[in-house]
Amino acid sequence: MKTSRPSLSGIEVPQGFLFAAGNAGLRRHGSGPDVCLMYSTAPARVAALFTRNRVKAAPVLVSQDHLERSRRVAQAIVVNAGNANCATGTAGMRTARCCAQEAATLLSLRPEQVLVASTGVIGVPLDARLITDQLPALARRLHPEGYRAASRAILTTDTRPKVAARSIAVGRRRVRILGMAKGAGMIHPRMATMLAFLFTDAAVEPRFLEMSLQRACDASFNRISVDGDTSTNDTVFLLANGASGAPKIGRRSAAAGKFEQALAEVARTLALELVRDGEGAKKLAEIRVEGAASAQQAEAVARSIALSSLVKTALAGADPNWGRILSAVGNAGVEFDPGRVTIFLNRTLVCRRGGGAAFDEAALQRELQGKDILIRVVLGQGKANDCFWTSDFTEEYVRINASYRT
Amino acid sequence: MKTSRPSLSGIEVPQGFLFAAGNAGLRRHGSGPDVCLMYSTAPARVAALFTRNRVKAAPVLVSQDHLERSRRVAQAIVVNAGNANCATGTAGMRTARCCAQEAATLLSLRPEQVLVASTGVIGVPLDARLITDQLPALARRLHPEGYRAASRAILTTDTRPKVAARSIAVGRRRVRILGMAKGAGMIHPRMATMLAFLFTDAAVEPRFLEMSLQRACDASFNRISVDGDTSTNDTVFLLANGASGAPKIGRRSAAAGKFEQALAEVARTLALELVRDGEGAKKLAEIRVEGAASAQQAEAVARSIALSSLVKTALAGADPNWGRILSAVGNAGVEFDPGRVTIFLNRTLVCRRGGGAAFDEAALQRELQGKDILIRVVLGQGKANDCFWTSDFTEEYVRINASYRT
Repeated sequence: MKTSRPSLSGIEVPQGFLFAAGNAGLRRHGSGPDVCLMYSTAPARVAALFTRNRVKAAPVLVSQDHLERSRRVAQAIVVNAGNANCATGTAGMRTARCCAQEAATLLSLRPEQVLVASTGVIGVPLDARLITDQLPALARRLHPEGYRAASRAILTTDTRPKVAARSIAVGRRRVRILGMAKGAGMIHPRMATMLAFLFTDAAVEPRFLEMSLQRACDASFNRISVDGDTSTNDTVFLLANGASGAPKIGRRSAAAGKFEQALAEVARTLALELVRDGEGAKKLAEIRVEGAASAQQAEAVARSIALSSLVKTALAGADPNWGRILSAVGNAGVEFDPGRVTIFLNRTLVCRRGGGAAFDEAALQRELQGKDILIRVVLGQGKANDCFWTSDFTEEYVRINASYRT
Repeated sequence: MKTSRPSLSGIEVPQGFLFAAGNAGLRRHGSGPDVCLMYSTAPARVAALFTRNRVKAAPVLVSQDHLERSRRVAQAIVVNAGNANCATGTAGMRTARCCAQEAATLLSLRPEQVLVASTGVIGVPLDARLITDQLPALARRLHPEGYRAASRAILTTDTRPKVAARSIAVGRRRVRILGMAKGAGMIHPRMATMLAFLFTDAAVEPRFLEMSLQRACDASFNRISVDGDTSTNDTVFLLANGASGAPKIGRRSAAAGKFEQALAEVARTLALELVRDGEGAKKLAEIRVEGAASAQQAEAVARSIALSSLVKTALAGADPNWGRILSAVGNAGVEFDPGRVTIFLNRTLVCRRGGGAAFDEAALQRELQGKDILIRVVLGQGKANDCFWTSDFTEEYVRINASYRT
């Protein structure tokens, strides 16, 4: 094991975090790394968020149990892609526990100090040995730069790794935050199929750590949609190991706001990357709702637009079909006056007071061929705003998902 | 005008209903009839259901107003396809009123005795004259057999007309029910983009007529999903003109149950045809949920499966991906024990007590190439059941909707 140092890629890896990835042969299609080990040289405070799907995969249940038993202190995470270890019964629970146990033995930890996460196909038995056979080599190869291999090992139908980092000054020290995530399918506001791992060498007071993670996720992972399905395996872990030596951050610390903002930026960068790399996605649309009567109304309207299959297919076709946006607003389940709604596509006014505005259709269609689209809906009811991000719905999405398993 | 007679196609058109279709040139792609007039020779009691989208098209608002002013008695309906006359402001309201007024003049009715319905693109001004110019010819050509041309004139991306009929004995007379509908996109449990017109020559007590329509729709149009969007124009009209001469049917009549059942069968036949002809759809899946703790739970679970993009794409790929079905159950927002869930695809047990069951995967995949699929989910919690119907989600759906408007 080597200790942390500035990354060659310009990303500063937080002190005391080491990573390694290997190949357990779990992928049905293609090859490449599919298992990884993430390690903190010092015990780290953990904040975690899990799927709200009532069907929870074994690694989710085991991690929840370990966090409770360890009082939210952990030092390692074992992650695999290719098999979600979900709907796999008691054998699946044994597999998840066995992976944690084996990593604990190799790293001289207690089992409950090891967390686990899996992503991939549901309902296929996962042989623990495929993973545990790899762990000794991974433990030997742990290295700060290993985050790059790890960020690839957690992917499924993603086409590229997602990594984001920030660093801030806390007292006279630097504190670093590093995040990596995987997404692609089953991405939905309520947490998505999504694994995200966030690491910081800040020392953070436990309740502030949890609050910061919740806030960062609410403004990022919980504000994106690819296909409206919530997976059985969603997990976000945030580990804070204090290895920077900077003073501990709590709710009243001078650095609290700065830390929260940096964490939120990392989460948001990863979330937007998840949408941009959604299954079959060619575009990222930002849905900005303004002038709502309340925050709840703004969120409901933004969510309804982000989830509309018809809005998303129109995006795929670069079709300035604002009628579908207005219809999605009408489906949000909130009271409003359609006659006060104004809609912009990028900077072009397309709907004024609930009716069509004159615009150069051919020019706007050309513009909507671009990769980044802004849908701005002004409700004219009050002062509340919200923002969601969604991808376009392409034939490629259907192609990927019609044959995911077979 | 000619009076009613038995249809040559074997369908018995209810007495006293006449139809005619014409071409107003409203369709962007292709040609064919796009406007029609439906007429009852005697004043008919009307029961109606409209979209729950907060954005309501002009014809919906005008029809609601006319029903109120006429105390739910009408004699004619003007329908057009190709333009939804929605988000068209006060000009759109004038257009809808003008169409009703013109038909009223031609047929010697009061304007409020004429209902209107439109389907097609949202937010494009609709020139009333395109429709009113056709109405004199339509009024001259009214004929019982015109229902066939009318059933084609109301279509948008539908590939075929949907017509269903039943007849029952009431006293010594025959009573007939005829229905026609259009669907294809924006089809969703909460009423769908869907126009459905139901005609009966029964005399029916007004409150019983409304109750029968509500029940029939709850078990048919409100239990189907193509793409999860609720349109701005959804309308179901049921007209009962009493022209059969049969005794009036009320809640306590001997014929009440028979009438309700026949109406429900017509609605259900049309609803299943809507799903089968959903945009890009190649398959009809019946989702049967059994053993739920309550009716609400059964409905929520069935709805969640019917709406899951991932279940629907797996259907398109004939992939026995029961994990996605289990995950959709988990997303239904209801409490249940995943360890008690059993899932069948057609007659094959694929998931027993929340885990995978052994089955011949290749054989089941071949079977799932078929057009009719049964997804049966047994929750093992109680005795409540429900049933939904959904289509598969194909690349064709995206192709149609990426360029619907342009």
